[in-house]
This record gives sequence, structure tokens and C-alpha cells, in this order.
Amino acid sequence: MSIVLAYSGGLDTSFCIPWLKENTGQDVIAVTVNTGSVREGDIDSFRARAMELGAADYVVVDARRDLYDRILSYLIKGNVLRGGVYPLCVGPERVIQADHTVRLALERGAKAIAHGSTGAGNDQVRFDVALRLLGPDIDIIAPIRDEGFSRAYTTGYLRERGFDVPAKKTTYSINAGLWGTTIGGKETAGTTEPLPEDAYTLTAGPDEWPTEAETITIRYEQGHPVAVNGTEMDPISLIEHLNKIGAKHGVGRGNHIGDTILGIKGRVGFEAPAPDILIRSHRELEKVVLTKWQRYQKDQLGEFYGMLLHEAGYYDPVMRDIEAFLDSSQGRVSGTVTVRLFAGHAEVTGCESPASLFDTGVAVYGEENALWSGADAKGFSRIAGVQQYLAATVGRKMEEVGS
Amino acid sequence: MSIVLAYSGGLDTSFCIPWLKENTGQDVIAVTVNTGSVREGDIDSFRARAMELGAADYVVVDARRDLYDRILSYLIKGNVLRGGVYPLCVGPERVIQADHTVRLALERGAKAIAHGSTGAGNDQVRFDVALRLLGPDIDIIAPIRDEGFSRAYTTGYLRERGFDVPAKKTTYSINAGLWGTTIGGKETAGTTEPLPEDAYTLTAGPDEWPTEAETITIRYEQGHPVAVNGTEMDPISLIEHLNKIGAKHGVGRGNHIGDTILGIKGRVGFEAPAPDILIRSHRELEKVVLTKWQRYQKDQLGEFYGMLLHEAGYYDPVMRDIEAFLDSSQGRVSGTVTVRLFAGHAEVTGCESPASLFDTGVAVYGEENALWSGADAKGFSRIAGVQQYLAATVGRKMEEVGS
Amino acid sequence: MSIVLAYSGGLDTSFCIPWLKENTGQDVIAVTVNTGSVREGDIDSFRARAMELGAADYVVVDARRDLYDRILSYLIKGNVLRGGVYPLCVGPERVIQADHTVRLALERGAKAIAHGSTGAGNDQVRFDVALRLLGPDIDIIAPIRDEGFSRAYTTGYLRERGFDVPAKKTTYSINAGLWGTTIGGKETAGTTEPLPEDAYTLTAGPDEWPTEAETITIRYEQGHPVAVNGTEMDPISLIEHLNKIGAKHGVGRGNHIGDTILGIKGRVGFEAPAPDILIRSHRELEKVVLTKWQRYQKDQLGEFYGMLLHEAGYYDPVMRDIEAFLDSSQGRVSGTVTVRLFAGHAEVTGCESPASLFDTGVAVYGEENALWSGADAKGFSRIAGVQQYLAATVGRKMEEVGS
Amino acid sequence: MSIVLAYSGGLDTSFCIPWLKENTGQDVIAVTVNTGSVREGDIDSFRARAMELGAADYVVVDARRDLYDRILSYLIKGNVLRGGVYPLCVGPERVIQADHTVRLALERGAKAIAHGSTGAGNDQVRFDVALRLLGPDIDIIAPIRDEGFSRAYTTGYLRERGFDVPAKKTTYSINAGLWGTTIGGKETAGTTEPLPEDAYTLTAGPDEWPTEAETITIRYEQGHPVAVNGTEMDPISLIEHLNKIGAKHGVGRGNHIGDTILGIKGRVGFEAPAPDILIRSHRELEKVVLTKWQRYQKDQLGEFYGMLLHEAGYYDPVMRDIEAFLDSSQGRVSGTVTVRLFAGHAEVTGCESPASLFDTGVAVYGEENALWSGADAKGFSRIAGVQQYLAATVGRKMEEVGS
Repeated sequence: MSIVLAYSGGLDTSFCIPWLKENTGQDVIAVTVNTGSVREGDIDSFRARAMELGAADYVVVDARRDLYDRILSYLIKGNVLRGGVYPLCVGPERVIQADHTVRLALERGAKAIAHGSTGAGNDQVRFDVALRLLGPDIDIIAPIRDEGFSRAYTTGYLRERGFDVPAKKTTYSINAGLWGTTIGGKETAGTTEPLPEDAYTLTAGPDEWPTEAETITIRYEQGHPVAVNGTEMDPISLIEHLNKIGAKHGVGRGNHIGDTILGIKGRVGFEAPAPDILIRSHRELEKVVLTKWQRYQKDQLGEFYGMLLHEAGYYDPVMRDIEAFLDSSQGRVSGTVTVRLFAGHAEVTGCESPASLFDTGVAVYGEENALWSGADAKGFSRIAGVQQYLAATVGRKMEEVGS
Repeated sequence: MSIVLAYSGGLDTSFCIPWLKENTGQDVIAVTVNTGSVREGDIDSFRARAMELGAADYVVVDARRDLYDRILSYLIKGNVLRGGVYPLCVGPERVIQADHTVRLALERGAKAIAHGSTGAGNDQVRFDVALRLLGPDIDIIAPIRDEGFSRAYTTGYLRERGFDVPAKKTTYSINAGLWGTTIGGKETAGTTEPLPEDAYTLTAGPDEWPTEAETITIRYEQGHPVAVNGTEMDPISLIEHLNKIGAKHGVGRGNHIGDTILGIKGRVGFEAPAPDILIRSHRELEKVVLTKWQRYQKDQLGEFYGMLLHEAGYYDPVMRDIEAFLDSSQGRVSGTVTVRLFAGHAEVTGCESPASLFDTGVAVYGEENALWSGADAKGFSRIAGVQQYLAATVGRKMEEVGS
Repeated sequence: MSIVLAYSGGLDTSFCIPWLKENTGQDVIAVTVNTGSVREGDIDSFRARAMELGAADYVVVDARRDLYDRILSYLIKGNVLRGGVYPLCVGPERVIQADHTVRLALERGAKAIAHGSTGAGNDQVRFDVALRLLGPDIDIIAPIRDEGFSRAYTTGYLRERGFDVPAKKTTYSINAGLWGTTIGGKETAGTTEPLPEDAYTLTAGPDEWPTEAETITIRYEQGHPVAVNGTEMDPISLIEHLNKIGAKHGVGRGNHIGDTILGIKGRVGFEAPAPDILIRSHRELEKVVLTKWQRYQKDQLGEFYGMLLHEAGYYDPVMRDIEAFLDSSQGRVSGTVTVRLFAGHAEVTGCESPASLFDTGVAVYGEENALWSGADAKGFSRIAGVQQYLAATVGRKMEEVGS
Repeated sequence: MSIVLAYSGGLDTSFCIPWLKENTGQDVIAVTVNTGSVREGDIDSFRARAMELGAADYVVVDARRDLYDRILSYLIKGNVLRGGVYPLCVGPERVIQADHTVRLALERGAKAIAHGSTGAGNDQVRFDVALRLLGPDIDIIAPIRDEGFSRAYTTGYLRERGFDVPAKKTTYSINAGLWGTTIGGKETAGTTEPLPEDAYTLTAGPDEWPTEAETITIRYEQGHPVAVNGTEMDPISLIEHLNKIGAKHGVGRGNHIGDTILGIKGRVGFEAPAPDILIRSHRELEKVVLTKWQRYQKDQLGEFYGMLLHEAGYYDPVMRDIEAFLDSSQGRVSGTVTVRLFAGHAEVTGCESPASLFDTGVAVYGEENALWSGADAKGFSRIAGVQQYLAATVGRKMEEVGS
């Protein structure tokens, strides 16, 4: 019998390997579901560490494309940013990690899945909900939470057994993934101070910004980004490419204060160049090709989609219904957007689309046109105000009666 | 008998003075309702020009405070930005201008009000709806639209009568007001090109940005900004002050493609340092003091409020109901936000509030706390996923039956 | 050259035949797009009347299935009732009528389409918008509105030319269609009086109600009603069947006060047994198979869909996006609903579905179950209240400071 | 030291008196917060029973007016019905009961509050959330849930100690309150069967319906019902009066399948004549006095308000914000509505209001009017369709390119 452990390589999941082995007597199969955190060259050292800690086997799954297809593409289609700024770097990763962890557990006939979440944060809920749903007959073990282990305890436990516990290189806790890096530290435990420059690991600071702006184009087809500067790329390469060139200009830094699933507030710093560039450019393209009501409803549904995704609600069928709406809305969202990267920010400077409602040759804002006459506009203005007029008339009548 | 003319000093309303006089035989009283466009020192030249063109009287009304109290304060409370970027610079001005124009017409016993709108844009609708509602017994005349006069016609008309027609100093049409400046030009007649540097009249370009960041604090009381860097100011002074220091750092530039009331798309460039700084900082303060559901509902209502305001719907009673919601939501939105101005952008770096839900001494995200135990969290995770679990279970059952 | 006239057989469109012929010199092709108003046996008399009035040709198109497929099915899927009661009897018919009228005009190479709408109501907008969009090169003529003809004028015009003008059989104006019959009369010109018994043409009054209840079952497949009492039927037959048996029991009567497209209020009586039975039963089935959030979002989108459909917005692409959402949501909406017809009302008494989230064998409301323990529930309750608790704690703290 | 017990007189809370006394050694103060369940004459027998079971004291609090002022009035203003039918009979009672129970506990210096909820339903969450928030220093004890006691256990426990356990008079569990009675039984444990006639305790069945309809009037002032048939009443008397006359005609029966807080589905039968009559009549009055957008936003907020209230979210500050919206919207919701009670149903037959937007003397639907001309309407129709027209034009252009 065996336990599959979602293994990130950090302290908590490292602790879980010997602890699970000792306390359950079962084999521990460590799995790293790579959603952008693992570089090609790091896999061997991940494996070596897991095996050294006593894992019976170590597996790495590249789930980046699955992450894009099932979630990130909808965050683009829905222009999803929490609180107007934060691109949901973490939540989507947990959904996909849980999924591939369960798949492996079923393949290996494991009776339990373990994860390293504490009892304080969002991830425990995301993992528990998804694992139970996908593997209803598989037990879930979260040793750190369930036993209430402290950091001192887990560190001591590893040292006692002769395992190396690397000194923390930084006082910041980093979660790096395809859709951005989040940063937590002593500043984010309060709301008053910004993160210091050296907390950032991905993006250039002001001293390193190029002095010249860089203008790039992004081509979209039906809502999907498909090319940068005319070069077609698969979505993973495209996102990684934009992360790189955006980072050079310091694009995509920010911090956000949000509501955790458990009801308290949390603050997080982030570096997400590609999401910043993609959502910004996609949104402007939509302004050109979608109708007012499409954008209005998309905004509301996108906001809700982000909320449920953040709150471990990915598997609610309403999410599939919203995705159907978003897919339908993207039929014409094709075209090319020009983005200028400079001094820590991305700015859309133009866009063009074969489906543009702007450049239709029939009407230009502020000029006379073939769609209506001045008399039509006068009639429109008259009728457009009727209900407000009636309400005001009644208001006046009532005031007179009242006086 | 007289006609009151909403007079901006531009070509179209200048034309209206002699044209109305000649064609109606009535006195023309020109009124400029100042919503931020008129500097103290300009009033005399506005008056001189109006009287030279044949106005029987010229009146200027300072309506900036009314603009703030009735509309701008709600754009802050509602964090209203169209399309995620555009701070509704123009629409609110028209509401207030119509209001004060009608007041004057009623005072003077005028039988008609004239405005210079064309038949192509939003303003005709905003003016017509508001004027008719506020002055139901007063006729509305919009000569340029109603008669379909071209620019060549109006220019010729004035020249024939010996009036000076100033050569356009710029190829850009500018609308300057308290809540920002909008810019239209040949680039905004399409979607592909950005405005050139010299189209901007308010904000510094990259070459002029200070090399040092400037960090300011904004204090809010119940949703209203009341002090900058600890100095209390009335809202008008505060907005003008933020426009000035923001402009120095190039803050608040942008462009937006939106839907006009008449259904076509329009593009507009803008410079709005104060709205950018205020909405950005107010939104972050709210993240600290409001609950998740307050922010969720506020976002949806704020978006709708902005849409109706843009579309000449200010007088719909629903707007008063939304204002009541917003007022209620701001009871605790007091505190101080720190904003860093640098390199063309404003960035919130911290905030503190006596009503913070963050710093309550009971719980910190990511750490054990007094509000719940690990066992509570496990129970919560279990139940939080019940409905998704049931839906997935039914899904599997149905697939089995189907196979 | 010819003009295609949307011909209903009523006074206004009867008048249009000779008037158009005389005033344009063109052939008038009269078309009746049957959306439920025309019984098989009536076609000959419709044709005879049109030809007598001078039509060059008369065409009848059975568009009932198109009406169901493109619109009515979505009104069921979205449970669309205006103001909680009115099943949008009329608006959908106009969309489909415009569509088939344009198709005929294109086939016949007509240069214009005429409709009989007045300038006072919704239908002119619905027709104008759809006709222009579908046939951008075809002129639209609405003689009654455009020329402002009164009823006295049109009656006189026909009589002068020797045409029979049938005395009105009733003082009520009736619009009968597949999705219900609407009734206007002197009572609906105000809000205080109900329609009298004899205004109803379809449903039984209290004196005629059967003394025994009739219980029927309706089977749904993926949101579509497919069988009544176990007998499979195509949707048109099914709706007509439910109209018949519902009418017998007086089901589906009501009246509604709503907002017209033009901003004034309008009141309408209606008899719509099938929509009442279908929406009522479909909604209850959804309560069993959909999640809370599916129903929540469906309700909001359904309300919006009904509003835009009512207001001539059917062709906005957002409607297709909402339809995609609704289609997605119906994947499991299969099952059988029991409805009791009695004393003027339909009442759902039960339903069952293979996709029920209710009868899953794992949990019954109010009883202990396998999904969670009492301790889990206690932990859930504790965490579910955290944010409200924090807000209340801060509130108390602030009051203390304030006092 | 003492414990305050929320005492309903049922088996579970009866059990709690001796159990708490024995197991905590503390005095038990039983309190019944009357939200409509207790008739004047029943108080003595409630008290006698509580004292017999060993309570140190028994207190009854009449909280009906508080229930109306703080919650029911907003359910009317918001026209709140869950799933289109269910008037939230129970949830509001729990909020008010928790509130008054905490007040008593604070007065008496109690260290704990006990309630009789099981671990299966909504009430435990509602009580726990409210009690903890209102009395953060008071412990919460829910013996039945926390110890997992079965019905057999609690019955045996009482019998062993010589206490009478009344045989259940009915197989149905009834919760009676001011805002309606709910009914659970073996039928509601599934979804296929209706409740039998004898499960209803309040409303007349078909055999008892009067053969004559009864027409009543309800007068509203600013959204509050203030008079029936011209007789002014306080809200409690008015609701009780409507419950009585509605019940006579069998009005307000129904059943609803909904989502519990814990994620499973639940079904409930109900009898709620007054809520049915009030919400139905209030909604129609609003159709006459509110604008389209007021009703649209009210509907959405009312739905959300009902959801959060149902789900133990009453104390979220967003609820106060929504109440502010609703209060604002009711300024003109004054007038008189006529309702016909007959054969198990209430039907609105007319309404009138000094603030009616209908009877303004300026426009009648379907007739020419002073608000606009036929030409205005034509211009309106033209412009109202512009965006759909552009979208369709682009669609055609793209199809041509594609073909």
C-alpha cells in the first residue's frame, strides 16, 4: 500500500516524506506537478532530495499545458484580475496539481494522498475539496494541519534524522508559477509597508529598467494569444516569453489585499509580467470587437469566475457554464494589439481587428455619418429620456401636493 | 424674451450667439458653467468675447463644488472607471452644466436654452435629457445639430460678420475639467495609433519625469479624501493639488475605446492624474475595511452607475438608490493611504485604518490563530466542497449508466 | 419592383395594401409569418382578403418551429418571466416575423418592406431594428407611424374604396400566438381595474373550471420538454397541447405592468397556459439538478435575456453568449415533473431526475449523514462566520473609541 | 454561574434542560424568543414545562416587532422569495432569536448559551454565527450536535428521569412563525410526492375554500403595508390579519427545493398567506412607481439579500448597504393595491398610487402622445439598433472573407 504526496520540495512537504513513512508504515510516492515552478534542470535535484528523504518513488508531471487549456485561457478570456490588480497566480495551480496527484494515486492504487498545507490558508481547502471530489475513495492526509506541527517541530524532526534543512536564503516565501510569482514576508503580514526591492526575484527594479521603450505586438485568435511580434508560439512558450521580456522592463509588479476562503484578510506581493500584458491587451481588443452588453456581462461573470476559482469552487458546474459563455464571446476576438513596455509598465498603444466595430466605414465618433441624421438623433434624445422625465414630473407633482 | 446659451468659448458656441440672435430675434444670454475648464484669469476674456459676438449678457457660474458633491464623490466611492481605465471626465460635467443652465434660464424667464452639440456625439443626448427634465416648459435649441451646419459653414458665418475665428492652435480637440482632460485627434479617429507626445497638455512626458519618486499620503474620511500629506483641504483644492503633483510625474495618462450612447464606438485619450490617484488609493483602502461581499456588490453597482452616468441616465431614481448604497458602504472607509508617484504611474504602497479587518490582533494569514483550529479548518474544507462533490458524484453515476 | 408587407389581417395592415399600392405604384406582396396566430383553416380567408385588398401575391410561412428553436426554448431554459409573471408572449414573435419577412423580400428582390406599427408602441422598434439589420439594403416603410394616420383615417380610406371594414367584435385588442395571448382594452389603459371575464378568449373562467384536479407529467431532456403524460411530442404540438389542457382549468391568466422600450409604462393582460406550466415545472426540476450558483447566475442572465429580448435587442451578440451559457447549464436538466392543474392554477407536486443532487443516497436534510460529522459542522459554522465576526469586532472597537 | 438556553418547547430543547444541568452543574435559564410561534395563552404551559424539567428560570420575549423592523420589512421591500416561491419563513427568526438570547445572557451574566440544533441543518450555523458575533465572550453549547445524540437517546434520557415525552401528534415537523409555517415530513425527504392535505395546519384545503372570492385592499406607505381595507394596523397585526383571511382561502401554500448552507439539497412545504399577499401586491405597486432600472437592480439585490440571509450572513455589513438601497428605493412606493383571494390563490387586480408613472396624463401605451412624435420614434428606432447593426455588418463581412 502506498501514499501519494504532493511534493513541492519545500520544508513542509520534505518533512512529510519521513513522517508519513514512519507513522503509516506505507510507501511514499512523491509527485511534483509542474505548473511552472520547476525548471528542466531542477528535476534531478528534486528527485534526489525526495529519494534521500525516503520516498519509494518520485514522479514529475508537466501540467503547464493543462493549466493553460483548462484555466489560464479562461482568465484571459474573462480578463480576470482580483481586486482590479491580482492575476490569480496560485489558485489555478492547486486545481491542476490536485487533479494530476489524484490521477497518479489511482494509477498506483494508493489508498491516501497527502499534502503539506497548514490550517491557516487557502490551499488546504483547495486541495481537500478537489482531492475528495476527484478521488472519493482515497483518504486525505494533511499532517501539518491535522497534527498542528510547528516549523520548529518539522525542522527538528528532519535534523534528528540526519536530513539537511537548508537555511532560508531569504526571509520571503515565494510561490513561482507560469501565471506569476507571489511573495510573502514580514511586510505582507501588515498593510502599511511595501515589499523592499530585494524581495522581488523576477522583475527588474527601476535601476535596471532599459532607458528605451520596447514595443511589441500580440496577435489573438478567438481570444487566445497566438503570436508575439509576428512569431507564432504555443501558449506556454508565449507566456514564458512575455514573462521574460516584461520582467526586463519591470512590468507586472503589484500587491493586493484580498479575502481568504476562511474569512480573514491576506496581503500578497506579486510579479506577473505575462498576465499583466495579456489581460491588458486582450481587454482593449475586446473593446473594439464586442458590444457594450457583451463586455458588461463578461465583466460580471469574469469577476464571479475569479472569486469561485480563488475559493476552491473550480468544480462547480456553473464554472463550465461561464466558460461556455466566455467561449461564445470570443468568436470574433481576433486581431493584433500593440503594447509598449517601459519604466515598469505595459501600455496598450493600439489594436486592429478584422472584426472591429470601430473601423466599419460607416460612422466615426464626432462626425456626421450614414447611420443616422441630426433629426434621428434629436428623436432618440427625446425618447431616451422619457422615463427619467416622467419620474421627475411625478416628483415635482408630489412636492407641490406636499407643500 | 431671451435664450440662455450654454457657452464654452469654442467655435460652435461662439457661432451660436450671432446665429441665435439673428434667427430668433431674441436676446442671447451666454453662460459658462465652470466645472474646471475656466481659470480665474480667463473669465474676463470669455466675457469680452461673448459680448463682442453680441450676447446680451454673460454669466459664469462656479459649479465645481456641486460637481464634486453630487457626482465626483460617488465616482470615488464607487471606484468608477469605464473599461477599467477611463475616469468619466466628461459626462458628469454635462449633468452639472445642464442643471445650472436651467437654473439661470428660470431666473431670467428665458423661453429657450441653446447648446452647441452636434448630432454625432454623446453630449447632445446628455444635454437634451437633462434640460428637458429640469425645464420642461423651456424649448431646447441645438443649432449645429438641428440645422446640420458644417464647420466650414460656421467659420464662414462668423468671418462674414467680421468676427475673428482663431486659427486652431492644435489639431487636437481638448476638453479640460476638474476630473481630467480628454483629447481627440486624428489618432483617436482610428484604433491603431497612440496619441503623440505633443497632444498632451497637462502631464509630463518621459523626458520631464523627475528622477526621484515622490511619496504622498491621502487621508480619507468616510470615503471622502480630506487631506494630502497631512494637510486638510476642501475637495476641489485637493483634486486640483493632486492633478498638479500627479501631472509632474506623468500620472494618469491613458486612452480608452468605449461605446457611445448612440451605439458606435469612440476612442478618447485622457490625462487625469487626480482621478487615477484617488480611485487607486480609495480602492485599496476599501480592501482593508470592507467585507468581500461589500466589495463584490459595490463593484457591480459602481460599474452600472458609471454606465448610466455616461449614457445620460443621471436622473434615473436608481442612481439615488445606488448612491444610498455607496454612502452606507463608506461608514468605515476612513484611513490613510500611501501612494508613490514615479515614472508615469501611481502605486499604492501601504494603507492603515482604524477600521481595518486586517490588523485585528486575532489572525494573520498563514499563521495559526485564535479564530479556528486545524480541526475546524478540516471540517470547513469538508463541508465547503459538498455541493461540488455531489455534482461530481452524480456526473460519474450518469457516465456509468451511459457507458 | 415590389414591396413586401408584413400582413396580420388586422385593420392597420389591411389599410396598408391599397395605400402602399396607390402611393408607391409598386406591387404589394402580403406575407403572414405564422407564429401561432393562424389556424390551418384560416389561411384561405387571409389570402382572399389580402388579394381582395389588391395584393399582388399572398404568402404564409409557418415559423412556429423556428420560433421555438431560436427563442422559446431559451425562455424555458432561462425561466424567463418579465416582472415575475409575464411570459414574453409578443416580443419573440416579432423577431421571427421580421426574419421571415426579410427572407421573402430578398427572394422576391423587393426594394422595401412595410409594417403596420404605430409610433406609440414597442413593435415599431422591434421591426425597424430587425429589418434594417437583416436587410440593410431594403427600405422600411411604416405608413401608420410615418404619416401619423389615425384609426378614423384608415377606416375611412378603406370604406371610400369599397372595402369592407369589419365591425370590431370586441372592445379588446388580442394578439394570439404560440407562447400566449395578450389582451388590451380600456381597463389596461389604467392600472386600477381588472379585465372582465369576457375579455378572455382562451382560458376557462371559474364557472367553467372542472371540479376535479388533473395531474399531468412533463418529461424534460436537457432542458427541452419532450413528453406529456409519457407521450412524446414535438415541441410545437407539446406547447399547443399544454395550452389546451391548461386553458380548460383556467391556468396561465394574469396581467403585468411593464416598461416599454420607449420609456412609458404599459399594462397588458395575458393568457398563457403552456408557458405557465412549462416554466413552473422546468424551474422546479432545475432546483433538483443544478447547483446553487448555477441557479443564481441563470436567474440573473435569464432576467437580462428577457429584458433585451423585450427591448428589440435580440440580435446583440451577447444574446448568443447567454444562450451558450443556458445550453451548457441544461446538460443534466432531464427528468419528469408532476403538475397538478386545478382551479385556475398549475402547481408542481413532485419531480424526479437521474441527475438529482437530492436523492444521492449520501445525505438527507435534517439527518446525520456520511458527508460530514457534527464536529465538521461545528468547524464549518465557526469559520463561515469569521468575516462577519471581524467586522462586528471592529465595529465595537470603534464605538468604544468614539465614546 | 448559569447557561441561557434558547428554548422552543420541543423535544430537543426540552432534553437540554436536565442534560445541561446535570453535565455542567450550572443553572439553566430557558428563554423563548417569540417570533410568532407562541400564542398568548400558551406561555404559561411553556413556563410550567421548562420549570418542571428543572430550569432555574423561564423568560419569554416578544420579538415580533423587532423581527418585522429589522428583517421582514426588507423582505417586503426587496420582494424576497427564494427560488421564486419560498418566503424565507425560518431564517429571519433565528437571527432575532439569537440576538435576544444573547441580550438575556449578557443581562444575567451567563457564561454560556445553549441551542438544540443538530449537526445536519441550517439552524446550527445561523445560531453559532450570530451568537459568537454578538457575545464573543460567551461559550456556545449545542449538545445534540456536539455529542451526536439520537432521538432515541434524548427520549430515553427524559423518560428515565420521569419526564413526560409527549407522543408525536403528527408525523410532520412544523415550524410556525409570523412569516409563515414550514412543514417537513416523509414526503419532503424525497422530491416526488406532495404533502398530503392533513399535513397543513394553517390554510384551508380545497374542500373548505369559500365559494365566493374576497377582494381586499392593502395600502402601502413608503414600502410598508399600513392598512387593510382602509383600516390602519401596526405591521404585526396586519401580518397576522392577512395570515388569517388568506388562510381561509387556502392562499400561500407551496413547496420549495433549496440549497442548504451545508451544500446538500433540502425540500420544505410551507403555508405563508401574508407573505404571499404582501410580496405579490408590493411587487405590482412597484411596477407602477419605480423605473425599469430600479426594478432591475432591486431584483438582483433582493435575490442576493435573501441568499445571504438564508445562509447565516445577516450580519455582513453588505446587508446594511442593501437595506440602504432598498430604503432609498421605497420613497415613492405608496399607494393602494387590490387583491382578490379565491380558490387557493391571491391575485392582484389593480393598484393606484399618487406616484404612478403610468397615469401621468402625458402618455398612454399604444396611443399618440405629447412626449414624442412618429418621427422621433423613427429616429429612436434607427439609433437604438446601431450597435447590433454594426455587429451584424461585421459578421457578414467576415463570412464573405471566409468563404
